Amino acid sequence: MLKRVTSMVNAGAMSGSGNLMDFLDEPFPDVGTYEDFHTIDWLREKSRDTDRHRKITSKSKESIWEFIKSLLDAWSGWVVMLLIGLLAGTLAGVIDLAVDWMTDLKEGVCLSAFWYSHEQCCWTSNETTFEDRDKCPLWQKWSELLVNQSEGASAYILNYLMYILWALLFAFLAVSLVRVFAPYACGSGIPEIKTILSGFIIRGYLGKWTLLIKTVTLVLVVSSGLSLGKEGPLVHVACCCGNFFSSLFSKYSKNEGKRREVLSAAAAAGVSVAFGAPIGGVLFSLEEVSYYFPLKTLWRSFFAALVAAFTLRSINPFGNSRLVLFYVEYHTPWRRKTTKLGKYPVLEVIAVTAITAIIAYPNPYTRRSTSELISELFNDCGALESSQLCDYINDPNMTRPVDDIPDRPAGVGVYTAMWQLALALIFKIVITIFTFGMKIPSGLFIPSMAVGAMAGRMVGIGVEQLAYHHHDWIIFRNWCRPGADCVTPGLYAMVGAAACLGGVTRMTVSLVVIMFELTGGLEYIVPLMAAAVTSKWVADAFGKEGIYEAHIHLNGYPFLDVKDEFTHRTLATDVMRPRRGEPPLSVLTQDSMTVEDVETLIKETDYNGFPVVVSRDSERLIGFAQRRELILAIKNARQRQEGIVSNSIMYFTEEPPELPANSPHPLKLRRVLNLSPFTVTDHTPMETVVDIFRKLGLRQCLVTRSGRLLGIITKKDVLRHMAQMANQDPESIMFN
Amino acid sequence: MLKRVTSMVNAGAMSGSGNLMDFLDEPFPDVGTYEDFHTIDWLREKSRDTDRHRKITSKSKESIWEFIKSLLDAWSGWVVMLLIGLLAGTLAGVIDLAVDWMTDLKEGVCLSAFWYSHEQCCWTSNETTFEDRDKCPLWQKWSELLVNQSEGASAYILNYLMYILWALLFAFLAVSLVRVFAPYACGSGIPEIKTILSGFIIRGYLGKWTLLIKTVTLVLVVSSGLSLGKEGPLVHVACCCGNFFSSLFSKYSKNEGKRREVLSAAAAAGVSVAFGAPIGGVLFSLEEVSYYFPLKTLWRSFFAALVAAFTLRSINPFGNSRLVLFYVEYHTPWRRKTTKLGKYPVLEVIAVTAITAIIAYPNPYTRRSTSELISELFNDCGALESSQLCDYINDPNMTRPVDDIPDRPAGVGVYTAMWQLALALIFKIVITIFTFGMKIPSGLFIPSMAVGAMAGRMVGIGVEQLAYHHHDWIIFRNWCRPGADCVTPGLYAMVGAAACLGGVTRMTVSLVVIMFELTGGLEYIVPLMAAAVTSKWVADAFGKEGIYEAHIHLNGYPFLDVKDEFTHRTLATDVMRPRRGEPPLSVLTQDSMTVEDVETLIKETDYNGFPVVVSRDSERLIGFAQRRELILAIKNARQRQEGIVSNSIMYFTEEPPELPANSPHPLKLRRVLNLSPFTVTDHTPMETVVDIFRKLGLRQCLVTRSGRLLGIITKKDVLRHMAQMANQDPESIMFN
Repeated sequence: MLKRVTSMVNAGAMSGSGNLMDFLDEPFPDVGTYEDFHTIDWLREKSRDTDRHRKITSKSKESIWEFIKSLLDAWSGWVVMLLIGLLAGTLAGVIDLAVDWMTDLKEGVCLSAFWYSHEQCCWTSNETTFEDRDKCPLWQKWSELLVNQSEGASAYILNYLMYILWALLFAFLAVSLVRVFAPYACGSGIPEIKTILSGFIIRGYLGKWTLLIKTVTLVLVVSSGLSLGKEGPLVHVACCCGNFFSSLFSKYSKNEGKRREVLSAAAAAGVSVAFGAPIGGVLFSLEEVSYYFPLKTLWRSFFAALVAAFTLRSINPFGNSRLVLFYVEYHTPWRRKTTKLGKYPVLEVIAVTAITAIIAYPNPYTRRSTSELISELFNDCGALESSQLCDYINDPNMTRPVDDIPDRPAGVGVYTAMWQLALALIFKIVITIFTFGMKIPSGLFIPSMAVGAMAGRMVGIGVEQLAYHHHDWIIFRNWCRPGADCVTPGLYAMVGAAACLGGVTRMTVSLVVIMFELTGGLEYIVPLMAAAVTSKWVADAFGKEGIYEAHIHLNGYPFLDVKDEFTHRTLATDVMRPRRGEPPLSVLTQDSMTVEDVETLIKETDYNGFPVVVSRDSERLIGFAQRRELILAIKNARQRQEGIVSNSIMYFTEEPPELPANSPHPLKLRRVLNLSPFTVTDHTPMETVVDIFRKLGLRQCLVTRSGRLLGIITKKDVLRHMAQMANQDPESIMFN
Repeated sequence: MLKRVTSMVNAGAMSGSGNLMDFLDEPFPDVGTYEDFHTIDWLREKSRDTDRHRKITSKSKESIWEFIKSLLDAWSGWVVMLLIGLLAGTLAGVIDLAVDWMTDLKEGVCLSAFWYSHEQCCWTSNETTFEDRDKCPLWQKWSELLVNQSEGASAYILNYLMYILWALLFAFLAVSLVRVFAPYACGSGIPEIKTILSGFIIRGYLGKWTLLIKTVTLVLVVSSGLSLGKEGPLVHVACCCGNFFSSLFSKYSKNEGKRREVLSAAAAAGVSVAFGAPIGGVLFSLEEVSYYFPLKTLWRSFFAALVAAFTLRSINPFGNSRLVLFYVEYHTPWRRKTTKLGKYPVLEVIAVTAITAIIAYPNPYTRRSTSELISELFNDCGALESSQLCDYINDPNMTRPVDDIPDRPAGVGVYTAMWQLALALIFKIVITIFTFGMKIPSGLFIPSMAVGAMAGRMVGIGVEQLAYHHHDWIIFRNWCRPGADCVTPGLYAMVGAAACLGGVTRMTVSLVVIMFELTGGLEYIVPLMAAAVTSKWVADAFGKEGIYEAHIHLNGYPFLDVKDEFTHRTLATDVMRPRRGEPPLSVLTQDSMTVEDVETLIKETDYNGFPVVVSRDSERLIGFAQRRELILAIKNARQRQEGIVSNSIMYFTEEPPELPANSPHPLKLRRVLNLSPFTVTDHTPMETVVDIFRKLGLRQCLVTRSGRLLGIITKKDVLRHMAQMANQDPESIMFN
């Protein structure tokens, strides 16, 4: 809009009144930027980009070089996507490899090369039988290395202690790094990214330091064995990559709206590498994270997700097996506002890590990484399965093929596993709640999936045994004849994981897509969809907010959720400022205020902008001027334009007003005037106003009646009004 | 908005001026409906729904019965989705079964029961060997039945003739039914559904007759062997179901905006049953079809798609094999505007059917159904594969397992297949072009996939043979050692199908999801994504429009595409009416026109509504009155309100104007006044105006300068301006 006004001003300048115009042709520095913790104006950003685009298109006809430049500009979007995909995929691969190594480091070390993980160490081992592959001589547990014992109570205790020590070391390093170098690196970052994508400015949140520290600390905290996931933080890391690459292209770095298109695509790439689920990533970005998602962004996100997944697969940290796609750790985050412990973040982390390590080590279902646990819970019991969960009593006379095993009675191992799972479930639920709030990178995706999968597997085993022992019950009679394979506990676990995750995040479509990209189980679409929809219904009965929205509200970010429905009967006139009894609206007149008047007004108020009217009597609106640009323009004029003094009249019209002969040189400010401010009438229902703010991404909207200016509604006013209507504290909305 | 105004009027009535109000409390009939071939006002529909919702919520506190009614209302959305899913799934299943039977009827008949298809007939046959299963004695070819010959030239010719005869009969029946009973049943309907979803009214397009006739004729045309598909028409059929069920609930039948939410979900259910791809269906509806897609609709679509897929699977026309998911025929449609043949639709259909049947029968790749063809082309060649495409020369010494066959030299069968495929490819491309435009239900999805799959398979076989014979070339050297299985022609076919379909429809994400729901091939995400993105790039270089958009433009529907970017420099003042030199805008004044004045104005103009201003001098805007509602209100008042004559003054203010003592009773019309019309300033860039029309779904927008009314911009004006800027004929936009 600004540039468009410029062009009009230029046209005016050519038609005669050019003498005052020259200095205004060059934009002043910082025009079009926003202050920290402020909301951007989407319409204006869009308009600025179209203008830039037009300029390039018209220039491109001038010379071959300009034409090539215009082509480069047109392709820069795809280039940025390519770079984001490459970097995000590489980082995810490096993180996976590092986590692999450091997780194993807690248990032992490789003698041939200390930087080998357990698996890499034993690859070259001579032991070829399946059972002994884990016990290659090159890999030594700490007890073997330090006291030369591999069995017995003292070896167990030594290993236990080393496990705890390493965990504490990793956690301490992580929390210190975050505290000292990049406070924004803690949590998962998804609520903040949602807020940023909706048009909010948080400087440094996606900066290079955050990128570096978050990557390093993510490796540390995941390796430390805390009950948290790397998926949410990976989305944050990918968005940092997106921000970094968009800063290299002026098309994106100078336009906050365009930059957010890149960030949406980066979020998709992040989920893509976190789960190895490119389509799920695109849908996640669409359903859960993004605010403004034009179709062009859909295709670019798709491309970025594709490149990222491909890069990750080339680094190939998982080998080729599908199950190890579960070598994802955890996801989805938030942070508490305050706790007593919260004041001592390092202590908090150390305490929680110690408790996690101490309790987790003895139980096999909590000692192993959560992704391995989920993978085991999802698995069906084949005949050769060595897992404790598959310790069924086999019929010795059975001659059925391996992949069609009928329901069998449970053996001792299954009953033991049930108890251990029950304990692990309780521990996981409790410890995860405490882990979320800590000042380290953390996600909630995998812990929630693990909780759901444990509960699901337990229910599945229960139903299976019920069906085996009571196959004459009505519900089982039709398809559970003796010898039939009618209950698959692994499927129960999968459905449970989807349901739990759906309840926490309230995703539906993207959840199902991620689940089946993860498991490769297209046959299970129907139960997964049913689980996702049911869990959403049940969770919505407790409250409409998913965990991301809850966190956004806790932090008081100005986020106008597209999912919230506003159905109250209020009108624009009830929300606009000034309210009854308040002092009148601060306005500028088009040609009667002096520079000093305006400076005083700016000093005495903290509004982000001022409506400009014909005169105080008529109150007919002609435009809107941003505070920031007024300040810059006046400062600029006072420095560079002769004859501008405090007494100079400021005018926003095309032609200078008629002034007495000896009055000082007037100051033309039409350039900073937005001639197309958004207006609604005072009778407009707030429902419509909310819709307009949401869909057009406005910062403010002026309220008129019969062409007369009555008041103003800002995004903050809208959010406060919505909070009030929902019986929440309107003061919780802190930013504008 | 209307209802809100009512409530304000009521408030006014209570506060004193009630005597004129009583009759206005009841809505006049037909208020809130639209005329055929007109655009709806989304904001208004939304506002009306919120009002209805509020009324129900406040009533629900009055009694238990009202509370139950409010619960029923809240759940009616899910009930409608359930019903749509059930009906759409059932219809799709019935269509599949009927097509099965009638396609086989062209070749022969079952002696045990004539309503059995070939497969059903032979199920009970005693022939158990695999090769003879198709040759059971109960199934008789026409030559066997009529002249008792199963081999030889005369039998071949007789079967050929019967094949052509049946095809002609089916096609003739179909085109006659469409012509006589439901002209809207022709084509696929997707472009019209897109237009309807964007807020256009086409009465009868989704009616019960269309539903019935389209279902019946779809079976006929698919069975006739024409080169068309049933997927697009199935989306239309599902939308007809959606329209039918939404007419049962006043929540949806009385609100065009809410009805469109149901239709979006119905479209998802349609794709879900067409391909057996529920998630692809939801994405297709989101990416390709829908206009207004709130998150609530996403979940509901998801649910409808789930129910539909489940119902279809229960009817189970495909058995359990994954390949037969390919028993989908074809998809994506359009119709030509006119051709010479187009004037004789029945003749056209008969001619094309005859040509199709005559040419298709001799070539095995065109005689079989296209879905079977695609399925064969996608398949990899196992050792036991009997297909001509798998006639490779096997190494007799080979002892490799069945599923790991190395590249082999092609045998005679493969070379024959290549020639036949090449001929089939050319035939398919040509005949599909002619088939699209005919006046029968038809889709383009499967024909495009077939074309892509044929081309892909041929390239695949070529590369395979090249790799076999030249495995020392640089590009093959690394992974094509002799004896390795390095080229899979089936995958080339799959990628080719995706690319061709992507080029035609310009879908990306939903295409990939549909493809992998169809093939179950999660491993192929990366090549499929790459194919989708590349084909979109290449196709976009030829023109930005997909086939649906092209058709919408051809028909001149008022569709404001969210994908089109408007980047021109025009302002609202360039587009608004009246233009320079045109007569001034027709406006109403708030309290100085008589009933007769208004009636004359309505008679002399055909505008859809009139702005209301304070007076002709001040031109300050106070609201907007719809033509249709003005007419209804005046008619109503003249009939039912005493003292209203042609000389009565009409007023839109709260209080009646002061009138001379003997003047007739004035008519209060505040009820039909929209007090919150949308306004922009004359300086607003058209880019912003287009954005507002798109995102808020406006019908018209008023243009002001400094609070004074200057003109009006309608959706038609916007579309015409966009056409003009794109150097197209603005007169091609025909509706408003």
